[in-house]
Amino acid sequence: MHTDRIARVRTNLAARGLTQLIVVDPLSIWWLTGYYTEPYERFLALFIPAAGTPTLLVNRLFPDASATGAHVVAFSDTDDPVPLVIELCDAARPLGVDKELPARWLVPLMQAGAASAFAVASDAVDDARALKDARERELMRAASRVNDEAMQWLVEQVRPGATELEIAEGLLGTYRRLGAQDHSFSPIVSFGANAADPHHEPDGTVLEAGDMVLFDVGCKRDWYCSDMTRTFFTAAPTDHQRAVYDAVRRANEAAEAIVRPGVTFAEIDLTARRIIEDAGWGPAFNHRLGHQIGLQDHEPGDVSATHDEPVQPGMCFSIEPGIYLPGDIGVRIEDLVIVTEDGCEVLNSYPKELTVL
Amino acid sequence: MHTDRIARVRTNLAARGLTQLIVVDPLSIWWLTGYYTEPYERFLALFIPAAGTPTLLVNRLFPDASATGAHVVAFSDTDDPVPLVIELCDAARPLGVDKELPARWLVPLMQAGAASAFAVASDAVDDARALKDARERELMRAASRVNDEAMQWLVEQVRPGATELEIAEGLLGTYRRLGAQDHSFSPIVSFGANAADPHHEPDGTVLEAGDMVLFDVGCKRDWYCSDMTRTFFTAAPTDHQRAVYDAVRRANEAAEAIVRPGVTFAEIDLTARRIIEDAGWGPAFNHRLGHQIGLQDHEPGDVSATHDEPVQPGMCFSIEPGIYLPGDIGVRIEDLVIVTEDGCEVLNSYPKELTVL
Repeated sequence: MHTDRIARVRTNLAARGLTQLIVVDPLSIWWLTGYYTEPYERFLALFIPAAGTPTLLVNRLFPDASATGAHVVAFSDTDDPVPLVIELCDAARPLGVDKELPARWLVPLMQAGAASAFAVASDAVDDARALKDARERELMRAASRVNDEAMQWLVEQVRPGATELEIAEGLLGTYRRLGAQDHSFSPIVSFGANAADPHHEPDGTVLEAGDMVLFDVGCKRDWYCSDMTRTFFTAAPTDHQRAVYDAVRRANEAAEAIVRPGVTFAEIDLTARRIIEDAGWGPAFNHRLGHQIGLQDHEPGDVSATHDEPVQPGMCFSIEPGIYLPGDIGVRIEDLVIVTEDGCEVLNSYPKELTVL
Repeated sequence: MHTDRIARVRTNLAARGLTQLIVVDPLSIWWLTGYYTEPYERFLALFIPAAGTPTLLVNRLFPDASATGAHVVAFSDTDDPVPLVIELCDAARPLGVDKELPARWLVPLMQAGAASAFAVASDAVDDARALKDARERELMRAASRVNDEAMQWLVEQVRPGATELEIAEGLLGTYRRLGAQDHSFSPIVSFGANAADPHHEPDGTVLEAGDMVLFDVGCKRDWYCSDMTRTFFTAAPTDHQRAVYDAVRRANEAAEAIVRPGVTFAEIDLTARRIIEDAGWGPAFNHRLGHQIGLQDHEPGDVSATHDEPVQPGMCFSIEPGIYLPGDIGVRIEDLVIVTEDGCEVLNSYPKELTVL
């Protein structure tokens, strides 16, 4: 059990007027207790009371949790876990619930009057998770170093006749050779106009001479995620293509240049967005600028126009502007950054200069 | 849009006193509309009103949904989807919600008074999905045929020096060669005493001469899942090992023999459990007998002592008794069955006789 992290969560809870919280996100449970299992549809929860030792509710099919130091309540497939939670709750007080707690558990807890009110309060954990400590920052750097090396491997796979799917499927072995354990998300490999769909899934598309190539990939190394995008040319770019690429690259670099404590997420988004708007492609940048990242590829607190909180030292997020012109071209350039005391550290060092492979 | 399926869901809703439902399970949305996307943390929902055309709420980053024939409400990353749902709801009536609807959306809907009450009602969809029609049954059979062939491939990989992980990682390519697209769950390959953990994850464990080997694997083929377990010997079994194996096999076969419309899930579980109890290993069969299956490997409605509803023609589920003796031995034998008009069809034909490889 990480008592320091539990304490930070309790402080965040108190600021929200809450004293008790039920956590169901398996990675949050891991971050707080060191215990990890993927419960699938079964119930797994950490109950944090106002004071004293938290309780882990675990199915007996899951790995043993006693080494965590938490109270452990074990149950079987034929037990209803809802009464077990009710027993832990102070019914006279409001209960903070994980944003991921599904209706199948939340509605019965409400119907049973487990608490005086129910509030989504997993941001008490998410806000704590967002501030990476020194050791976590080192793990984020290490995961992105692997990703930089993997990008070099990806570039070496680009040759006429290659398919998106075969390159995507070779990536996991490369990550493992480089010391990572897994993808942090399903890799995006897009040839030609496929890149104009920001979430294109790699398929049997064959690389044709002159196609542009977009790689948006990330690994998990020692629990922490990387995530980077680069877009390459395989023939000399047209003026139009060069202009699109340059607008995206300038947007990426301008946004990274203004990151420092006190600047808001919205200002960072706006900085990139204005450059793309000024270049005439505003509507073609159809997503937020970025997302926080850590144990999950996408963590709460996006880098978007509607998120007007200031960034803080230890926060880690992506800067990934893009321009998507259906049937024509898609370009995205993405790095991860960690906010430092007086600026930010860009975790990716793979070059962003326009490159013809 | 599958209007017949929507109609079945509305009938099920009416039986629960409900007229409106919000569905968020992406596979349920696919089953009802033909539209599939994986939304990750973004909002995706199908709203089924009392009458008239359902509405799909989709992020503009998702694939176009207009071909479904549903009303489509598109929104952006910077839009809050909650007001869009509120606008669709009849606030004077109760709203059925998907069991998977997370607190992050459900609590705001409640706070805004989107409906007069909230009830978990995705079983209206799940119950409809549970009754496979003729075409779905054929797809279930086809997925299990691939799994039978893949089991043969797995058996051929068993040789001293092989690791669990390398066999597990070769399986996806085998599935694809056999016409499937993906795993239906992360494959379990367990050597020796590792099999005594029913959810052991394949690791670097090396096969030693004489180890028992357990494979619990499944594929997705054309959306539908297979799931089968076999346990093999690599040396002549001891009397103890043979007795454990035989108890599990008899439990599997006895349970399959009693499946017919009208028999309850609990009776099927009890039939297998009693055989293992009578053999003296009752506590070592520490999980439910099985689970329903279809578009997901685990679908609602388990085969367990607490599920006392009768099975119906078209239901498909696993029969997977096991005996787990930590540090010693783990045996599980699993088939899928489809309930027919007068019995059941076992979808797996891979032999269950005690086999020394």
